[in-house]
Amino acid sequence: MKKFVNATDDVLQEALSGFGRAHADLVRVHDDPVFVTRASPRRSGKVALISGGGSGHEPMHAGFVGEGMLDAACPGAVFTSPTPDQMLAAAEAVDCGGGVLFLVKNYEGDVMNFEMATEMMTGPNASVVLNDDVAVEASTFSTGRRGVAGTIVVEKIVGAAAEAGEELESCRALAETVNAQTRSFGVALTSCTVPAAGKPTFELGEGEMEVGVGIHGEPGRRRVDLMPARAIAQEMVDAITGDLNAAPGSEVLLLVNGFGGTPSMELYLMYDAAARRLDGKNLTIARSLVGSYCTSLDMAGCSLTVTVLDDRLRAFWDAPVHTPALRW
Amino acid sequence: MKKFVNATDDVLQEALSGFGRAHADLVRVHDDPVFVTRASPRRSGKVALISGGGSGHEPMHAGFVGEGMLDAACPGAVFTSPTPDQMLAAAEAVDCGGGVLFLVKNYEGDVMNFEMATEMMTGPNASVVLNDDVAVEASTFSTGRRGVAGTIVVEKIVGAAAEAGEELESCRALAETVNAQTRSFGVALTSCTVPAAGKPTFELGEGEMEVGVGIHGEPGRRRVDLMPARAIAQEMVDAITGDLNAAPGSEVLLLVNGFGGTPSMELYLMYDAAARRLDGKNLTIARSLVGSYCTSLDMAGCSLTVTVLDDRLRAFWDAPVHTPALRW
Repeated sequence: MKKFVNATDDVLQEALSGFGRAHADLVRVHDDPVFVTRASPRRSGKVALISGGGSGHEPMHAGFVGEGMLDAACPGAVFTSPTPDQMLAAAEAVDCGGGVLFLVKNYEGDVMNFEMATEMMTGPNASVVLNDDVAVEASTFSTGRRGVAGTIVVEKIVGAAAEAGEELESCRALAETVNAQTRSFGVALTSCTVPAAGKPTFELGEGEMEVGVGIHGEPGRRRVDLMPARAIAQEMVDAITGDLNAAPGSEVLLLVNGFGGTPSMELYLMYDAAARRLDGKNLTIARSLVGSYCTSLDMAGCSLTVTVLDDRLRAFWDAPVHTPALRW
Repeated sequence: MKKFVNATDDVLQEALSGFGRAHADLVRVHDDPVFVTRASPRRSGKVALISGGGSGHEPMHAGFVGEGMLDAACPGAVFTSPTPDQMLAAAEAVDCGGGVLFLVKNYEGDVMNFEMATEMMTGPNASVVLNDDVAVEASTFSTGRRGVAGTIVVEKIVGAAAEAGEELESCRALAETVNAQTRSFGVALTSCTVPAAGKPTFELGEGEMEVGVGIHGEPGRRRVDLMPARAIAQEMVDAITGDLNAAPGSEVLLLVNGFGGTPSMELYLMYDAAARRLDGKNLTIARSLVGSYCTSLDMAGCSLTVTVLDDRLRAFWDAPVHTPALRW
């Protein structure tokens, strides 16, 4: 295993320590239980937006804590759900009278633990389960579709709505809407390696790729010989648009997301290929995001996410955001 | 070779096409010759800041074109200097009466080609050669120290000065000052693979790392068994501070830069280790940047960069920047 680590048991604590210190102007990292809150003041009565999930997907979610996006994030151990006590402590820290909205990726552990947390809460709260991955209908850790990089689009748009003063039920409904208008599809060129395991999660031959991979290395639709970027992008876009069923002429957001081991140059090349394919489907790319935002440790690979926009969603996407990983 | 590519000859053109389209609000990509300019209007008489170099280091330099940083960037082929005609065309496009300052990383091809360009120019211009890498005194493509991730710090600080109205000689002198107060050191856990070559640039055993590596895979100081992150950070920090000779109590900027194949989680873990080492040297980390900003294609590895700050440099660092890869 070739990683920058000390003891594998300390990876999360040390990475969070560095994260908190590097971004002390934006976030606070809390220990025992572990959660991350935004450093900037919040308006009283604002809906508190909280997400969380296993670590190894950085910058998701802690990198999206800050003004205009999340109020708190709960990082679990690598590829392991956070626990209800983390969620309760985070909720208590950031609830400022507007109630708490939990954004939960659809994995069994996450869904169960966020449910347990909400059952123990007395104040107003709601949860939305996110499931944007069109690749497979059920997977290693999930019944129903997996929640992947589309989560970032939901967090950004609903974060802006909460900042703008929308109330809990409105934010919840908006999260459902964005999730319903968002689809993603991922491919892996290599496996990832979980530090505690010390070896690749799955084996992929020198000339092979996994089409439809999950963000923990879960199997996709098929394993094939490595294809040209254009053919890969076509298959990804077609899987997304075939399921999304957007009206011709729709405006969309295109997110090209790296899985951790794929550099910027390849992501922009994939953006080019994906954008050309979308052009041919009479969809207009109105907003774009390219970078490694929802990773799978050191996996080489990428995902595409497409969200159908309207005026309201586009305005919330454009609203100011000030977090470690997204700023404008 | 496991990459998202079509034909290897088309990698640069396709990646730039995607880059230009994804960031059409910020940059313009010009063909024949290839260069990238900022889309936002510039004040008449502003010093035009131009950098460039071989591709494969994205987002450097084109990702730093925009308000508050570069006016133009000239991307060469992968790991190959851009040519004088690119530099001349870029200069002509962005010179708005304040003269042109070229920021040149210290590689023989870059230095020679930027010199040729300036010899053909008639308007006011100046060049500063950047050489922040303390690892070795000469290398495969350079006489004297290599220019690496410290370039980003120079581009940001001098970009803010040019935006604030400082004149050509003042910007030139500031670039020299920042370069003189900046040191970097890199390590590789894997080689990179140049698309046209199709195989790793160098061989590194399963348990080995290269200490002091260059951003094209040039040899460093030594090849050793993979060390714990803490020991790696110590060696890197000590090499930097031993050469930088900063006054005790100095404020510094710490940049932890990923080489393309190393995910955010490991970079923050390295930040934590490097910050602790700097604490023990009576240096105060006043500003931080963590991410993959000066890459070496898909190389797993990272570099540390330390710049000694003063009030003026810190203010220029903090000034607004609005580019594809850096925004605040």
